[in-house]
Amino acid sequence: MSSNRDARLKRLQYNLLEWKIDAALITSFENIRYISGFTGSSAVVIAAQNKVFFLTDSRYITQAHDEVEGFKIIEYKKQIDEVVSLLKKIKAKDIGFEGNNINYDYYKKLKNFLANRRIFSLTEKLNAIRIKKDAAEIEIIRQAAKIGAKGFDIAKRHIRDGAVERDVAIAMEFGMRKRGAEKPSFDIIVASGKSAALPHGRASTKKIKKGEAVVVDSGAVYKGYNSDETCTFFTGSPTRKQKEIYDIVKDAHDAAIDAVMPGVKASSIDAAARGIIKKAGYGKYFGHGTGHGIGLLVHEMPKISKFDNTMLEENMVFTIEPGIYMPEWGGVRIEDMVRVTKSGCEVLTRVSKEMTVL
Amino acid sequence: MSSNRDARLKRLQYNLLEWKIDAALITSFENIRYISGFTGSSAVVIAAQNKVFFLTDSRYITQAHDEVEGFKIIEYKKQIDEVVSLLKKIKAKDIGFEGNNINYDYYKKLKNFLANRRIFSLTEKLNAIRIKKDAAEIEIIRQAAKIGAKGFDIAKRHIRDGAVERDVAIAMEFGMRKRGAEKPSFDIIVASGKSAALPHGRASTKKIKKGEAVVVDSGAVYKGYNSDETCTFFTGSPTRKQKEIYDIVKDAHDAAIDAVMPGVKASSIDAAARGIIKKAGYGKYFGHGTGHGIGLLVHEMPKISKFDNTMLEENMVFTIEPGIYMPEWGGVRIEDMVRVTKSGCEVLTRVSKEMTVL
Repeated sequence: MSSNRDARLKRLQYNLLEWKIDAALITSFENIRYISGFTGSSAVVIAAQNKVFFLTDSRYITQAHDEVEGFKIIEYKKQIDEVVSLLKKIKAKDIGFEGNNINYDYYKKLKNFLANRRIFSLTEKLNAIRIKKDAAEIEIIRQAAKIGAKGFDIAKRHIRDGAVERDVAIAMEFGMRKRGAEKPSFDIIVASGKSAALPHGRASTKKIKKGEAVVVDSGAVYKGYNSDETCTFFTGSPTRKQKEIYDIVKDAHDAAIDAVMPGVKASSIDAAARGIIKKAGYGKYFGHGTGHGIGLLVHEMPKISKFDNTMLEENMVFTIEPGIYMPEWGGVRIEDMVRVTKSGCEVLTRVSKEMTVL
Repeated sequence: MSSNRDARLKRLQYNLLEWKIDAALITSFENIRYISGFTGSSAVVIAAQNKVFFLTDSRYITQAHDEVEGFKIIEYKKQIDEVVSLLKKIKAKDIGFEGNNINYDYYKKLKNFLANRRIFSLTEKLNAIRIKKDAAEIEIIRQAAKIGAKGFDIAKRHIRDGAVERDVAIAMEFGMRKRGAEKPSFDIIVASGKSAALPHGRASTKKIKKGEAVVVDSGAVYKGYNSDETCTFFTGSPTRKQKEIYDIVKDAHDAAIDAVMPGVKASSIDAAARGIIKKAGYGKYFGHGTGHGIGLLVHEMPKISKFDNTMLEENMVFTIEPGIYMPEWGGVRIEDMVRVTKSGCEVLTRVSKEMTVL
């Protein structure tokens, strides 16, 4: 077992003690992968304080033996039956589960089959086990960002007067895959002109026109980890208004990055970006949070929002992505991924955020 | 509102009466799309017996007004708060929800906020509303299958001695997208030689060699609907064993298709295919069900398995996909999608299933 993975497991088992539970039922693919290394899609991990079990079905049993070390591997016909029987066998009384991952029907069965045990949701705690990235994860995320940057090289070549948004997105996706991406981290956004006024506009069949701002939001999945980066490009020399908005968003982005360091609250990073946009008079056009943790999921802890008071620690990885979106005008968003370092942060994404005219 | 969609809604409201519930809380993207036409990813439908509500957040409100007719459209900041307040306002006492879609944490909040109401899982009933396809759906599924067939044209051109499985899959995916697929229905499987012994093997970096059987399982999403089809191709003249296995699987496939008609149990279709494979002595190498319903989800009701006693009805749509998988040898699977007709079935997929040597 890699030393990183071994450390993750030890830490989880230490957590069980702290949380005073006998066993954690881990069902989300991201936590299963994090703890066990398994990359398949159908499995459960049951972690007890001194033993860990990996359960999967016949389709994945060979893969499990290849990928998973340090776990007792068990094959099930029907997952719930094996989970229940194992929890009984190890005499677990207090059992925590991922309440945002298990659906109600599954919970109901667990509850019925495990009468007289305490079964409770530990969503927040079990999500938080991945909040700080270890050396192996950081290296993979750097690679994902590098592949993601190739997508932007392609975008820069394809974006021009008359190009269809969707074709740009397809070319980016194809290019990233050829360079080793498993897939894009999400549906690539290429939103030009007025379409950029929707923060979550996708790539449509709209043709890009001269003089538009084009928001391109993309990322690559590499070894299960996601990158996420946004550039706003301009087709033809920007108008005064475009330049004004871009500069404000860029300042907000830079200020947030400058604010990142251990011991600062996530909400303060949001405030750093939001303050600048508000002061410039565009506060109501920045309707989303400043960023989000990222790793095996595109959105994970911490949230860089006014509601998240998580204290930043070294090796947390998250995005910084302020934006201004004005109906009937368009939008600008600038996004990088950062890693908290001892004294500040390292920017993991690689594309220049200086104003770029294509 | 299209007459098909209007009929779906009326039928759901009639069902509420039958099920004796005041409101159904519909949260899965597939049922939301089916009932309302909304194609976005964040919304809830609350269907009462004489009024229907569509709830979404600010990002999707414009799209909702464009796509959704006949519903009262409500914007929420926090979904759960609006759901609770609306259910109180319409005085719903008996409330059904999709228990396989709502996670435990969400359920817990509902339960806490809606004390003194009966809230219960209606998973099976709410999944079954889509089991028979209407004219509009069938037409879209036909189109999806047509686009899917283009993928196989590309596969046939790319599969040869020395081709990398993954490159074949990428070429297929991009070809389907160019022809209008929103995306593939699932990660395309291109599994050659021994790799084909895993029913769910994906496309790897393995090179295809001369003399191998290559299982290609692919589908296209079109207007939200999935196609699903599998061909097993041969690179070079098949060995006697390859021919033997192919013929058995083909016979099983044909027998299952012949057995489809209204009034027959889903399990009988499975038995028709399984009987032939068993009789030939390969029963233990056919480890999965014979097929599955398909539509807005790749896997939906009915299951064509020995455990599903659903009585087939006209316009149910499902796959027929027997296979034989032998460790260290490889595998063969042959899959078509069929629609139950008045007297038998219509095969919706379009690629020939005669033995094909590339």
